[in-house]
Amino acid sequence: MTKIPVGILGATGLVGQQYIALLAEHPWFEVRYVAASPRSAGKAYKDVTAGRWHHTKMWGNGVESLIVEDANQVSRAEEAVKRGDLSFVFSALEMEKDAVKTLEERYAAAGIPVISNASANRWTQDVPVLIAEVNPHHADIIPLQRKSRGWDKGFIAVKPNCSIQSYTTPIWALIKAGYQIQRVIVTTMQALSGAGYPGVPSLNVIDNVVPYIGGEEEKSEEEPLKIFGSISNGVFQNAEYPKISAHCNRVPVTDGHTACVSLEFGTQKPSIEEVKQIWASFTSLPQELDLPMAPKHPIILREEADRPQPRKDRDTDKAMAATVGRIRPCNIFDLRFVGLSHNTVRGAAGGGILNAELLKTKGFIK
Amino acid sequence: MTKIPVGILGATGLVGQQYIALLAEHPWFEVRYVAASPRSAGKAYKDVTAGRWHHTKMWGNGVESLIVEDANQVSRAEEAVKRGDLSFVFSALEMEKDAVKTLEERYAAAGIPVISNASANRWTQDVPVLIAEVNPHHADIIPLQRKSRGWDKGFIAVKPNCSIQSYTTPIWALIKAGYQIQRVIVTTMQALSGAGYPGVPSLNVIDNVVPYIGGEEEKSEEEPLKIFGSISNGVFQNAEYPKISAHCNRVPVTDGHTACVSLEFGTQKPSIEEVKQIWASFTSLPQELDLPMAPKHPIILREEADRPQPRKDRDTDKAMAATVGRIRPCNIFDLRFVGLSHNTVRGAAGGGILNAELLKTKGFIK
Amino acid sequence: MTKIPVGILGATGLVGQQYIALLAEHPWFEVRYVAASPRSAGKAYKDVTAGRWHHTKMWGNGVESLIVEDANQVSRAEEAVKRGDLSFVFSALEMEKDAVKTLEERYAAAGIPVISNASANRWTQDVPVLIAEVNPHHADIIPLQRKSRGWDKGFIAVKPNCSIQSYTTPIWALIKAGYQIQRVIVTTMQALSGAGYPGVPSLNVIDNVVPYIGGEEEKSEEEPLKIFGSISNGVFQNAEYPKISAHCNRVPVTDGHTACVSLEFGTQKPSIEEVKQIWASFTSLPQELDLPMAPKHPIILREEADRPQPRKDRDTDKAMAATVGRIRPCNIFDLRFVGLSHNTVRGAAGGGILNAELLKTKGFIK
Amino acid sequence: MTKIPVGILGATGLVGQQYIALLAEHPWFEVRYVAASPRSAGKAYKDVTAGRWHHTKMWGNGVESLIVEDANQVSRAEEAVKRGDLSFVFSALEMEKDAVKTLEERYAAAGIPVISNASANRWTQDVPVLIAEVNPHHADIIPLQRKSRGWDKGFIAVKPNCSIQSYTTPIWALIKAGYQIQRVIVTTMQALSGAGYPGVPSLNVIDNVVPYIGGEEEKSEEEPLKIFGSISNGVFQNAEYPKISAHCNRVPVTDGHTACVSLEFGTQKPSIEEVKQIWASFTSLPQELDLPMAPKHPIILREEADRPQPRKDRDTDKAMAATVGRIRPCNIFDLRFVGLSHNTVRGAAGGGILNAELLKTKGFIK
Repeated sequence: MTKIPVGILGATGLVGQQYIALLAEHPWFEVRYVAASPRSAGKAYKDVTAGRWHHTKMWGNGVESLIVEDANQVSRAEEAVKRGDLSFVFSALEMEKDAVKTLEERYAAAGIPVISNASANRWTQDVPVLIAEVNPHHADIIPLQRKSRGWDKGFIAVKPNCSIQSYTTPIWALIKAGYQIQRVIVTTMQALSGAGYPGVPSLNVIDNVVPYIGGEEEKSEEEPLKIFGSISNGVFQNAEYPKISAHCNRVPVTDGHTACVSLEFGTQKPSIEEVKQIWASFTSLPQELDLPMAPKHPIILREEADRPQPRKDRDTDKAMAATVGRIRPCNIFDLRFVGLSHNTVRGAAGGGILNAELLKTKGFIK
Repeated sequence: MTKIPVGILGATGLVGQQYIALLAEHPWFEVRYVAASPRSAGKAYKDVTAGRWHHTKMWGNGVESLIVEDANQVSRAEEAVKRGDLSFVFSALEMEKDAVKTLEERYAAAGIPVISNASANRWTQDVPVLIAEVNPHHADIIPLQRKSRGWDKGFIAVKPNCSIQSYTTPIWALIKAGYQIQRVIVTTMQALSGAGYPGVPSLNVIDNVVPYIGGEEEKSEEEPLKIFGSISNGVFQNAEYPKISAHCNRVPVTDGHTACVSLEFGTQKPSIEEVKQIWASFTSLPQELDLPMAPKHPIILREEADRPQPRKDRDTDKAMAATVGRIRPCNIFDLRFVGLSHNTVRGAAGGGILNAELLKTKGFIK
Repeated sequence: MTKIPVGILGATGLVGQQYIALLAEHPWFEVRYVAASPRSAGKAYKDVTAGRWHHTKMWGNGVESLIVEDANQVSRAEEAVKRGDLSFVFSALEMEKDAVKTLEERYAAAGIPVISNASANRWTQDVPVLIAEVNPHHADIIPLQRKSRGWDKGFIAVKPNCSIQSYTTPIWALIKAGYQIQRVIVTTMQALSGAGYPGVPSLNVIDNVVPYIGGEEEKSEEEPLKIFGSISNGVFQNAEYPKISAHCNRVPVTDGHTACVSLEFGTQKPSIEEVKQIWASFTSLPQELDLPMAPKHPIILREEADRPQPRKDRDTDKAMAATVGRIRPCNIFDLRFVGLSHNTVRGAAGGGILNAELLKTKGFIK
Repeated sequence: MTKIPVGILGATGLVGQQYIALLAEHPWFEVRYVAASPRSAGKAYKDVTAGRWHHTKMWGNGVESLIVEDANQVSRAEEAVKRGDLSFVFSALEMEKDAVKTLEERYAAAGIPVISNASANRWTQDVPVLIAEVNPHHADIIPLQRKSRGWDKGFIAVKPNCSIQSYTTPIWALIKAGYQIQRVIVTTMQALSGAGYPGVPSLNVIDNVVPYIGGEEEKSEEEPLKIFGSISNGVFQNAEYPKISAHCNRVPVTDGHTACVSLEFGTQKPSIEEVKQIWASFTSLPQELDLPMAPKHPIILREEADRPQPRKDRDTDKAMAATVGRIRPCNIFDLRFVGLSHNTVRGAAGGGILNAELLKTKGFIK
């Protein structure tokens, strides 16, 4: 099978590098186009990232010798499409929000689908925020998006913030099993890689915790409601529940966001055993389709008293699963648990790749 | 003024060492008696703690050459009392809970007041759990305790768990200002020194977080209710409110427990500004009495977006204050904030010393 | 092909666990026997290591349900041999040195080859200390060892201390290329896992470095001389050179020992370029035999200014390579470089497995 | 006594902040002038450093409300001199090297003495690089510097790089005792604060060590030779010995540089006991003059096997001492030891203040 040629916008940053590392041996996709800021343009990818390459293995299949393009020059991408080197792009752009929004739209308008990690288009009314196991049906908006925008082949689909991935799928599994969830109070302990590179200065976090991440609490509270929402008249309608209140903290951990969750059900309340059973047996469309990047078990249950832990659990199941543990009653709400997911894999590049796989099986990318 | 001679039970452990460091230049108390496990007994304090002394300064005034006694031999302490070398003891015993309870009672029965950090006697009905700024009046139970036990000069007073100190005083300040607090959901990020020494293995916490500390959530949920409670018929009656639900985590921080708190008021709800004003202006009996170990401001308010932080705020005001920040509304309950206190000073030895100072001014120790 | 059944002595410790993780999918060996201290005996391996299992993946092929044996009861191992469940053992015993020595000899005397990580037998005159790429010919002593001890099938072969693995192979490559090395001054920055589990208390190393590891400097200075030595009259004769002086430090790194090396050649001095060429092209017997655990490149050269680094380079080439960088002249000796190797893989279990593979190809184990 | 008004150039950076923290209660000096980059100019010091103030205590005596000046506008400093608000400046400028050199000369030419931490003028022929305990007599060049430059009151005096402070004073003490030192091989493990702020990204150092710091090895090898040198014809003449070879590493420690030193004496070799005695009894001019910032003991000897350690020893004696330990023979050179000093206090702001105190007693600043 010939692989689909893909491009990475923001290819030199932390998430861009993660895309390249994860796609090095992907069965369907092959990185043939890398774009970044103008100051990197014209140089070999290897030279631009030398000294700040974050992985053990060096680059991927030939990516090291690709010449970095200027991400602002969409025409260069169009030329790549014409010569068969580009079918769609993953966006890991690290620019000012409005600039990202405009640029992603320019790619889509040029007929190039954009699978994005950026936050810029998450609240665009006709752009789906996809977690492949939770709301794969939200991809159904893409034809409407194309139509209303006047786009032919291009479209924009995004993924949510990394901070919510450790508890959104578990919550969804409970909703899907028929239990309404009214309220969620969550405290996250988030990894350093979530801030990109250079990101958090080491003097801020050695022997320390920083109880604040700009904008993160708002995203954590609002994004799940769009993901749990529905499509109505060609735009997304947020779910009303659960109400979420978040405390977001930065801790001295390289990768892996941990969340302490307190959760209140509606009138129907499952037992702790039932919650465990729902989570342990949860699978969804990506598992049915056996997508290459899909974890075998989207939710992994740990029974030990002291798990999940970021260093020990983040890499489980291709670093794509949410690991949950400490499932116990709450003396104020109904249920308490701890969730964990790998923020630069499941929460960023891996999640983006899984979305692309899903959209390919649905025929939106080719 | 002649200083009061004091003893430390469990003098060689992390908290015992903290007592000795803090008392090195205390204006009222002087360490003249150190006791620990039988295997340390008979050796000079300096030799027992060499290679595991945790402070920059070496020991205190002559403590280094004191001969360590066997803490189980209460008769040795009685002899010290007779020769004028001991008036009361601080207990930082690290033994099995029942053994601590019995041993502390034996000291009290021998006429030696026990100011304890141990958890063993926290739920003993007639033993006060004191935070000097919150419930100094609980010391009033001591005459009743002495009477019912048949103790003459001895008594037992304890301090609560270190995990609750960053939010209990702030909550109390609000209650004292007339606001009932119904419910509290709190997630703590606790320092390594809270586990004593050797305590947490380094392999557990480098690049990691452990979302579990045995017994800590129960203590966090229950101890404030005794502290906020009242004395009735010679025993303590727990307060009914607030209901507390806790998630306790261990993070790679040496000292300083951080807590993310979500709090629901009763029908009367103060504004955010009023909360800040209540906290900034809070003082209590230790401040009025100008006790040597009392912080000038028991609650310190930080307005920066990203404070309090353990490494930067734990040492404020002799490491005896609770620093609060990120005071903001909660979209589920009413108020969210972050609290921080130094767990081995305010939360252990410093809190014990402040209790002793309080009990001295009340005439219970001499 | 039927796999050779192997046992692990000290199976529940950090290195024992590493053996089990690495052997989970080994093409030649299969763990069928696990032994540890008497207090673990009689329980399922899974239950003994629950809550202190250090790897992401849980156990290996069925090892989780093996019943742990008492390592002191050699007769149990003999029974396992008889029923075809044991062919040889990896020793990762964490007991007092003399006890390990005696116990390893008892296994060997019982006809069970012992491939050991323990230090107990490193200075036994007729026991080879093997680095498979450096002194594979030292295995030739095994027939002599068997003969003089009166052992039939059993023998003891050990591997050196983890601290020397990042520079011993590079030094050997230079010696093999014809350059005498006179003197080496080395400073190591060693990972926490080198101390086992629970090992180093977290309070010792957060925001800290400990410039001392008991016994490590002596091992670092002396073991290479046995490895570079020769067999004479059935016992080992140490090499005279290089003289080594070591400073060993503990740093807050989970895995991966780093060494800063200053090295003085004899009269023949290679150029920096020649050194690089020797290292980049070095291979040895394990590579020729294509042993399963052998790294493709025993020495990996990094040209970046700031490599090798433990977190980024320790896992290269199955975590079995030594990565070297910062190769530059020395203004006192001749050459300076930085070496790095993974201490619990190359420096412990992985090195042991590679030795076993080598000894199998030589016919010593079957 | 009226305090001497001083200014800080580069007042908002990490070292600038350290100056302000250390001078908060200084008996001789008072910060009355703060200057930084143009973008900070015109704002209150408090506002510029809010959110990036690195100390527990907030600012110093009134410094928080000083308006930050543009460091490039020397005329502003001259005006401050005229109105009695400035007598001399501490330079902690973080600009390009040539720019610093020129700017410091402009201040000196304007009659304002410059006590600098910057490296720009360290190799200027007539500028002394002072360690107050080692080469206080190098201040004698100041009249010659003034004369040849045509400066009236102004002059430039600098301090050396922070990396050398843990071993240069101990080495000097041995030289002063009559022992020639031929060769030194040193490996440093340097703290993060040495790189300023934001400095080292956290992702570079969590669970990691970086074996490279740009330019640091050259400074470590060369600066001691100027410090140990002499004045000849109005310029400095380097000492010929010791030859130094350095490996410089960055480790995850906030403050405190540690050095592992191997040292070769000339023909006269002191015993280990004599070395200890020389170090323990070493004092110099700052101690004789009882300068406010001078440590009581410039060299502190620790006899424990595992000291010095950065977190435990960096703050000893006002964080101004070099702590040495692990003093033992070397099997290649003659002596091995570990040295430690606080890099932002002794190695930066504290060292600068001590130099200023020395220069005041010598009459160069008033």
